Amino acid sequence: MGNDTNLNNLAMSEEAQPLLDAVKKHIRENVDPITEEYHRLGEGRAERFSYAPGQLELLEEAKSKAKANGLWNFFLPNAETGEGLSNLDYAYIAFELGKNPLASQTLNCSAPDTGNMEVLERVGTPEQKEKWLKPLLNGEIRSCFGMTEPKVASSDARNIETSAVLDGDEWVINGEKYYISGAGDPRCKIMICMVKTSPDAPTFRQQSQILVPMDTPGVNIVGPMCVFGHDHAPHGHMHIKLENVRVPKENILWGEGRGFEISQVRLGPGRIHHCMRSIGSAEKALDLMMERGLNREAFGKKIIDLGKNMETISRARIEIEAMRMMVLKAAKAMDVMGNKEARIWVSMAKAMVPEKCCQIIDQAMQIHGATGISQWSPLSEMYMQQRTLRFADGPDEVHHNVIARNEVTRYNQSGG
Amino acid sequence: MGNDTNLNNLAMSEEAQPLLDAVKKHIRENVDPITEEYHRLGEGRAERFSYAPGQLELLEEAKSKAKANGLWNFFLPNAETGEGLSNLDYAYIAFELGKNPLASQTLNCSAPDTGNMEVLERVGTPEQKEKWLKPLLNGEIRSCFGMTEPKVASSDARNIETSAVLDGDEWVINGEKYYISGAGDPRCKIMICMVKTSPDAPTFRQQSQILVPMDTPGVNIVGPMCVFGHDHAPHGHMHIKLENVRVPKENILWGEGRGFEISQVRLGPGRIHHCMRSIGSAEKALDLMMERGLNREAFGKKIIDLGKNMETISRARIEIEAMRMMVLKAAKAMDVMGNKEARIWVSMAKAMVPEKCCQIIDQAMQIHGATGISQWSPLSEMYMQQRTLRFADGPDEVHHNVIARNEVTRYNQSGG
Amino acid sequence: MGNDTNLNNLAMSEEAQPLLDAVKKHIRENVDPITEEYHRLGEGRAERFSYAPGQLELLEEAKSKAKANGLWNFFLPNAETGEGLSNLDYAYIAFELGKNPLASQTLNCSAPDTGNMEVLERVGTPEQKEKWLKPLLNGEIRSCFGMTEPKVASSDARNIETSAVLDGDEWVINGEKYYISGAGDPRCKIMICMVKTSPDAPTFRQQSQILVPMDTPGVNIVGPMCVFGHDHAPHGHMHIKLENVRVPKENILWGEGRGFEISQVRLGPGRIHHCMRSIGSAEKALDLMMERGLNREAFGKKIIDLGKNMETISRARIEIEAMRMMVLKAAKAMDVMGNKEARIWVSMAKAMVPEKCCQIIDQAMQIHGATGISQWSPLSEMYMQQRTLRFADGPDEVHHNVIARNEVTRYNQSGG
Amino acid sequence: MGNDTNLNNLAMSEEAQPLLDAVKKHIRENVDPITEEYHRLGEGRAERFSYAPGQLELLEEAKSKAKANGLWNFFLPNAETGEGLSNLDYAYIAFELGKNPLASQTLNCSAPDTGNMEVLERVGTPEQKEKWLKPLLNGEIRSCFGMTEPKVASSDARNIETSAVLDGDEWVINGEKYYISGAGDPRCKIMICMVKTSPDAPTFRQQSQILVPMDTPGVNIVGPMCVFGHDHAPHGHMHIKLENVRVPKENILWGEGRGFEISQVRLGPGRIHHCMRSIGSAEKALDLMMERGLNREAFGKKIIDLGKNMETISRARIEIEAMRMMVLKAAKAMDVMGNKEARIWVSMAKAMVPEKCCQIIDQAMQIHGATGISQWSPLSEMYMQQRTLRFADGPDEVHHNVIARNEVTRYNQSGG
Repeated sequence: MGNDTNLNNLAMSEEAQPLLDAVKKHIRENVDPITEEYHRLGEGRAERFSYAPGQLELLEEAKSKAKANGLWNFFLPNAETGEGLSNLDYAYIAFELGKNPLASQTLNCSAPDTGNMEVLERVGTPEQKEKWLKPLLNGEIRSCFGMTEPKVASSDARNIETSAVLDGDEWVINGEKYYISGAGDPRCKIMICMVKTSPDAPTFRQQSQILVPMDTPGVNIVGPMCVFGHDHAPHGHMHIKLENVRVPKENILWGEGRGFEISQVRLGPGRIHHCMRSIGSAEKALDLMMERGLNREAFGKKIIDLGKNMETISRARIEIEAMRMMVLKAAKAMDVMGNKEARIWVSMAKAMVPEKCCQIIDQAMQIHGATGISQWSPLSEMYMQQRTLRFADGPDEVHHNVIARNEVTRYNQSGG
Repeated sequence: MGNDTNLNNLAMSEEAQPLLDAVKKHIRENVDPITEEYHRLGEGRAERFSYAPGQLELLEEAKSKAKANGLWNFFLPNAETGEGLSNLDYAYIAFELGKNPLASQTLNCSAPDTGNMEVLERVGTPEQKEKWLKPLLNGEIRSCFGMTEPKVASSDARNIETSAVLDGDEWVINGEKYYISGAGDPRCKIMICMVKTSPDAPTFRQQSQILVPMDTPGVNIVGPMCVFGHDHAPHGHMHIKLENVRVPKENILWGEGRGFEISQVRLGPGRIHHCMRSIGSAEKALDLMMERGLNREAFGKKIIDLGKNMETISRARIEIEAMRMMVLKAAKAMDVMGNKEARIWVSMAKAMVPEKCCQIIDQAMQIHGATGISQWSPLSEMYMQQRTLRFADGPDEVHHNVIARNEVTRYNQSGG
Repeated sequence: MGNDTNLNNLAMSEEAQPLLDAVKKHIRENVDPITEEYHRLGEGRAERFSYAPGQLELLEEAKSKAKANGLWNFFLPNAETGEGLSNLDYAYIAFELGKNPLASQTLNCSAPDTGNMEVLERVGTPEQKEKWLKPLLNGEIRSCFGMTEPKVASSDARNIETSAVLDGDEWVINGEKYYISGAGDPRCKIMICMVKTSPDAPTFRQQSQILVPMDTPGVNIVGPMCVFGHDHAPHGHMHIKLENVRVPKENILWGEGRGFEISQVRLGPGRIHHCMRSIGSAEKALDLMMERGLNREAFGKKIIDLGKNMETISRARIEIEAMRMMVLKAAKAMDVMGNKEARIWVSMAKAMVPEKCCQIIDQAMQIHGATGISQWSPLSEMYMQQRTLRFADGPDEVHHNVIARNEVTRYNQSGG
Repeated sequence: MGNDTNLNNLAMSEEAQPLLDAVKKHIRENVDPITEEYHRLGEGRAERFSYAPGQLELLEEAKSKAKANGLWNFFLPNAETGEGLSNLDYAYIAFELGKNPLASQTLNCSAPDTGNMEVLERVGTPEQKEKWLKPLLNGEIRSCFGMTEPKVASSDARNIETSAVLDGDEWVINGEKYYISGAGDPRCKIMICMVKTSPDAPTFRQQSQILVPMDTPGVNIVGPMCVFGHDHAPHGHMHIKLENVRVPKENILWGEGRGFEISQVRLGPGRIHHCMRSIGSAEKALDLMMERGLNREAFGKKIIDLGKNMETISRARIEIEAMRMMVLKAAKAMDVMGNKEARIWVSMAKAMVPEKCCQIIDQAMQIHGATGISQWSPLSEMYMQQRTLRFADGPDEVHHNVIARNEVTRYNQSGG
């Protein structure tokens, strides 16, 4: 299918080049220098889901500088707001953002806000935009997306059980969500919540998405879900119970039963962004392999020259380059075909990238010996992030199924 | 090579069967019931490397019961002390011990004490035995083994740099060790420390092993090394600096330059024990796959019936059974050939088991979705343990090299 | 499940040792010396499915010697005829037989005759035994088994479409079979043919097995099925059309609708035999890796010392030993539990062995360079044999499914 | 490294589009219709390395039509002769050519002639061009390349032992070559032969390439080298002994000691061409998987819906798309950087593609059951071709080593 030459021009546009340069300069000058202090301030806090004095100030200063330089909100592809970058151009920038985990936030391009802003921009009412999109675009508040539930296999979104029932002018919401990323941040003020509003409608019309302010009574944060034992404070992947949560009727997005339609809107660009960051992570793992392999000796040789290590390095390089092209191609497909038609390309990138990145990082750990899994190396944390991505936004298996079913369709259409 | 029928009788001896039954009964009656309380007491301690009031009492009570029932110290294969179990019989017991992490300790069969006791029993002087082996055998103190160093690739033990220099009647030790398991336990009183005593001797005669009491001035515990961010308190894998540590001349084990020889003694049984516990872990991961797969639904099917899951389960079962036979065979080989000759079989088990267990546990995580990597499932902790074992007692690559070099020898000897 | 110590005594019985020695001696003295001439005589024959003058005489002489030494028909486990070897003891012998492809035939232990004789011995009537089992046991004729069909997925034996309809005192058979191994041999006189006799019976009672003499009118051999282009003459995997083939009513085995039951009888030992031969093949591939790796140089090193080759060798050794134990265990399980209960163990061996042997042989080819896939090396032919075994007697996938379903049963029974 | 946006525009040029269309039309109208007859005529020939009456006539007619339509010799990138296509544009065409193995020849674009013509065009003297390049460009003769030797690991070209010694005005050549593709064709008139001329020169200046007419006395074709038992007549991979072969002094290419330099010229485009054909082959394997999977049933389901088959299909699709992008990128790199600088990209494609194609074809065979390895399916022949490519033009391991060494260089240059 990829012989379609239209999709194969994956060069960044000339117009985007200055922006990429500006982003690199911003990271170098405004983000890298504050990173160590930012993390040092946040260390060892007993009150996990909070910021230490001074932390947010550091961030806000970098955000101001970015805004002043016009580097702000360019994640929204072809949007009226922001820079209106194409997905392809944004992918190149996302790769740079992946190198410093703080960088995205300083440009107001962090997940899950980006996806939430995109949804609000595409389907929000003027009132919803005024109330929630505006402060998000200004970087004044943060947000989360309430999708996954502990009691059902929510990889099949039809399983979502959290209910929203109309009672007068209010939706009354009851249910349980977990792995709600970003909900631990004290700045998080709004959740877009996937709920079942219409259990008797056709399967793909039963769900809706509703805006739930985080301070609504009944929104009870039970605690963080850990990943390999880590709570990822203060961002957090939170476990939340929704108990008789009441929100105004007009908080529904795009209308009752359109929850699945909205999901189509949001998932593409976010996945591409994740994938480009993943590739940055694999690139870093490869660098660390080189560093360790060339600077340690055992059995009379550099470690890199022992056994299969050189082949491991070659395979990592090949896979990284192949992943990069696949992610760029998915971005291009979104630009050319639209998110819905491009979803196969997005699924290919999503099914391919985190799994291979996990392997590459794991090999880097092995080359490091015990240090590779210790606090002296970033590898184990990188591994956990990538391992998590094999579930986030749909587990690998769901994407493989999407791709294979598309092959069936193609085969049948070709008169196979 | 495995066609040698002598090695293929892997049945447990009839004499060991009652012991196995007694061990199972002990775990069921004396260990399982205290496990939850033991862990609850230890939760959330600020002073990480210590025990909460009541924790050790629980343990001691279970130890007393084990002792009273004659279930004590049977780890020492064919030894005068203890039960004198064969390695093969002990392997069957180790599999049971693997099911509850507390169990080994209640029978005085925990690593790294077992290896240290074995070494003391085999090569210690009467004085060394009186002072250190006796309280270890009684379960009164614990111990650690100081091997790995952060600054060199210690998978090649010739790289060990910690030096011991004779000054009058004392060894003066300087160096740095890390991942010293068990050194965090307040009960740990003695370290067997691998040092370089004779830099001018032939390569494999430069190292010695010296008894270093943990309270000797200059033994400075810097802190715990983490594994995927965990400190494994209170046991701990500690980072230790040895700064002008002085111990009596007679603390050397077996004589100067015999460090490598002693290593041959210790490593076999410990690895087998680890491997049987690993298999127990893989067995548990398979159980959890079944449980999740049969009790969740997505896309109109039980999860177990989706995609490749049934094949994943089959492959896990096959690998588990194959691993089990290989570990039992390595145990048998130690019984029949002695540890030195059996080292190829031990290396085969060690190179095979943790890697495959990691894969099986990882697949179990994938079948669980995000819950599989959360604190609600034991899988991520099990994964970290197995991932660590791919380095401990020699990384996979070192064992593969031992095995392949043995093939070269065999080929050459066969006149190939 | 494999912790059951009863299954773990995999040593050959003492009684079988002299037989193994005698078999080795027979191969060395009577088979190895004729092998080259036998193959030379058969080369380049235009009439593919025939023997050259002298070929069968060589074979018959070796057969006579074997018979004279009492080495005959010992494939039948615990049978009244033959040596009555246990499956486990026979597995050790099968490993030796695997080293020279001619050897089995000289001992009257070749597939598919062994399975056919076993079936006739177990379920045949006195008349059937007299007519077909006797000459088979004497090595006077050969036989084939008509199972697989080209038009259906016969891995699901319920799909078998060849019909047998009773017309007076005769079965009238119509259908198409392929990959009928051994049917190309001019000595092949009888087929046991799986047919559908009872389309209206319950699913597993619709099939029967019927004796079809090869010279019956309507048994039309279309030609050989090739494997990677090879016709395996004169043995042959034949494509056969059965067109109004009429055989007497009493040619049915064990009664109408018992086809599946009979399959349970036959499949275990044959698979074990195949698997032990496969392991012999992997062992040979490993030997060839060693030979090539130690005797060639490139880039200033022996090939064995380049890149991952040493690890490849180690992994091959580990896998070979693990496979061997699993096959021996399956043989033991048949001895202890009977073929039906042991089928899970047989499926584990069958799903594991040919796949891994293919990988090992493939790696040996890679180490050989282009010579590895040429006629100068046996590797490509070995590869094709193992690749074929991934389909024969059930494709890997069917066995994996059997194994996984057994895990489901176990889980449910344990009250999971 | 692949973040270099210059290399990422992989769209075909607009100018090449009409040529691609013309090539498709030519194949459809002039090649596909003769294919069956061409092969039928050639079947079952006893004189293996010859053409049947009528075969070449069919080919010549198609060649004439191609020439008349201007579809001729466009393989030479940016050359004065031929169409001067870029490597990238040619890659798109090569993908089409891969669909019918006869197609390349009708356009005078077959290996190994293309590489030989490229070398002659780049480094040949006017006399050499007149005598050999002209008839090759006209499609009047064919050629071969004498590189690989049976007695040494010629993946390390420094090992080449065939010697050429100047004796008066003639080179006297002695040595042995094998797997010389195309040397079986009766139209093959000239070999470019890699020889050692200067054993005392620096390592990479010892080799030269010399033109050896095939009818020179002493050029003795011993016979074909088989691949999995196949002789690939009449093309053939021939085993050739060179015994006191005398050719004029001026037959040397580019001068003594420049053998390695010339190799740099030839290898890039040929490998890309091979790789694009490989991808075409994987695409076909995927089609066959779909066809079989959707049209057969077992165990009550379509085969495609059994077990892991849908995931297998998804992974094949992902790998095919990733490979395609990597091959196009290597072609682009040759256009942008020149063959020498682009060699890392070429090695990445070459190390990646045949290995993955083998896996995909193997999976397609498994889905087909026994038919997949029979003469009723093209899969086993496709497999053998791809398996061979894992050696041709450098085994995988050599390319991995090139890639990894480049990473070392990059790391060191970055001041790592």
